[in-house]
Amino acid sequence: MNKYISFERPDGTASFGRLEGDKVLDLGAPGGPAWLKDSLDGDLSELAITGEFDRAAVTLLPVIPNPGKILCVGLNYATHVAETGREQKDHPAIFTRWADTLIAAGEALVRPPESERFDYEGELAVIVGKGGRRIAREDAMGHVAGYSIFNDASVRDWQRHNIQFTPGKNWPATGAFGPAMIPAVEIEDIGAQRVQTRLNGELVQDQPVSDMIWDIASVIEYCSTFTTLQPGDVIASGTPGGVGDKRKPPLYMKAGDTVEISIGVIGTLANQVVDEV
Amino acid sequence: MNKYISFERPDGTASFGRLEGDKVLDLGAPGGPAWLKDSLDGDLSELAITGEFDRAAVTLLPVIPNPGKILCVGLNYATHVAETGREQKDHPAIFTRWADTLIAAGEALVRPPESERFDYEGELAVIVGKGGRRIAREDAMGHVAGYSIFNDASVRDWQRHNIQFTPGKNWPATGAFGPAMIPAVEIEDIGAQRVQTRLNGELVQDQPVSDMIWDIASVIEYCSTFTTLQPGDVIASGTPGGVGDKRKPPLYMKAGDTVEISIGVIGTLANQVVDEV
Repeated sequence: MNKYISFERPDGTASFGRLEGDKVLDLGAPGGPAWLKDSLDGDLSELAITGEFDRAAVTLLPVIPNPGKILCVGLNYATHVAETGREQKDHPAIFTRWADTLIAAGEALVRPPESERFDYEGELAVIVGKGGRRIAREDAMGHVAGYSIFNDASVRDWQRHNIQFTPGKNWPATGAFGPAMIPAVEIEDIGAQRVQTRLNGELVQDQPVSDMIWDIASVIEYCSTFTTLQPGDVIASGTPGGVGDKRKPPLYMKAGDTVEISIGVIGTLANQVVDEV
Repeated sequence: MNKYISFERPDGTASFGRLEGDKVLDLGAPGGPAWLKDSLDGDLSELAITGEFDRAAVTLLPVIPNPGKILCVGLNYATHVAETGREQKDHPAIFTRWADTLIAAGEALVRPPESERFDYEGELAVIVGKGGRRIAREDAMGHVAGYSIFNDASVRDWQRHNIQFTPGKNWPATGAFGPAMIPAVEIEDIGAQRVQTRLNGELVQDQPVSDMIWDIASVIEYCSTFTTLQPGDVIASGTPGGVGDKRKPPLYMKAGDTVEISIGVIGTLANQVVDEV
């Protein structure tokens, strides 16, 4: 299972590379998300290695540091629809994040002083490799470069200030994304991977990707009908039931907490929580 | 009243300039939205003129061709809240558009074949000149570079597929934005300007900006609490009552229609409607 990362070299410049044990093999920076296409058209493992660093000497960046679009699917697991008390509709709920909300694996999730209702949402991240418009469901999986993990951390009171989620989903340092991308071609059965979220070690979300109401291909078909997808766009595909806000009593993230989201062979995204100072 | 535009020169390169009668005075391209700050810190009229074109020889672009963020305020006029049958909440509804939905004045609004419920929404566009986070209400108007006009054209069935508006608000060529920016310092009373939408000459929306539930300063304060505003970001500040979808019978835009939105001294944004082919 090859793991591809975006990272900062020791000199502070950004690049991407492949993790190999304790090493990062530098694959250079061939101009934005074009490299994603290689994971579809060819093989990322054939990219020329331009350098090598110790893993400890580099700093992880969000897997895609600056996606043009981040599409988030709401209400995509029946357990989560049920716990929110909402109605299941005939089409997915789509909201958005801006790229300036993203942090890498290992960076801190920041709870703003405006809220005490800071909540986790473990999600499978789908990374678009080949763009397109009106992509048919049967072609959709051929547009996926790979998969990663997303924590769609939410400021619940601001999310429900009014009928649109934007204000609860776009605080800086609330979208954890990483640690690595696994090429889609290397994952035999994405549906069998379980989204498991742990808060301070306690398992709080645990469902297979196959429990999604709208599967990855359906979401790509739906979203690409109204907007043109581009390489490097990211789809946060929805969170299973078990969010903190709907527990009795509620379970919110607070400074010092650790959130780990594991998705089978894709790995584990771990972040600590800090209060904004 | 000075009118600033983004435009394509006859050679196809992008620039911005000032309209003077039948002429466009080219003010060069000093690196993105930094020029907006001049409308706050100094005076855009002091920028060096680097060329001059006949108005007819250039092509208008959206006033800000590629905003980092487009924040849209929903339900910001009581008449529109009432016609939608929704409840008025204690905070504004904020949804988003991507920049690839924008068109300039004079370009065609494109109705996709997926819907016959293509609707107009005349709105005041607020252009951020000075960025910031947690901007206090009393300081907020000092962050506004200027004003323009927005048609937040909406694909109503897709907007209501589920509880989030994104799929109804992000089709290509549905966000008309222009024709020009009027510096905020040149408008004595923004509240007194009337948002007037005409479909094929018939007046369908007509209310003063002062009827907004959350005024411009409040919206800036609210949005800058959860996200960092940058120069060139755009706030589409909400539409008055009178949208086509809530009329009896409904009044949708169709190929060949002309939509004109006038906002007092800011001018008129006119676009025709075409069917996507």
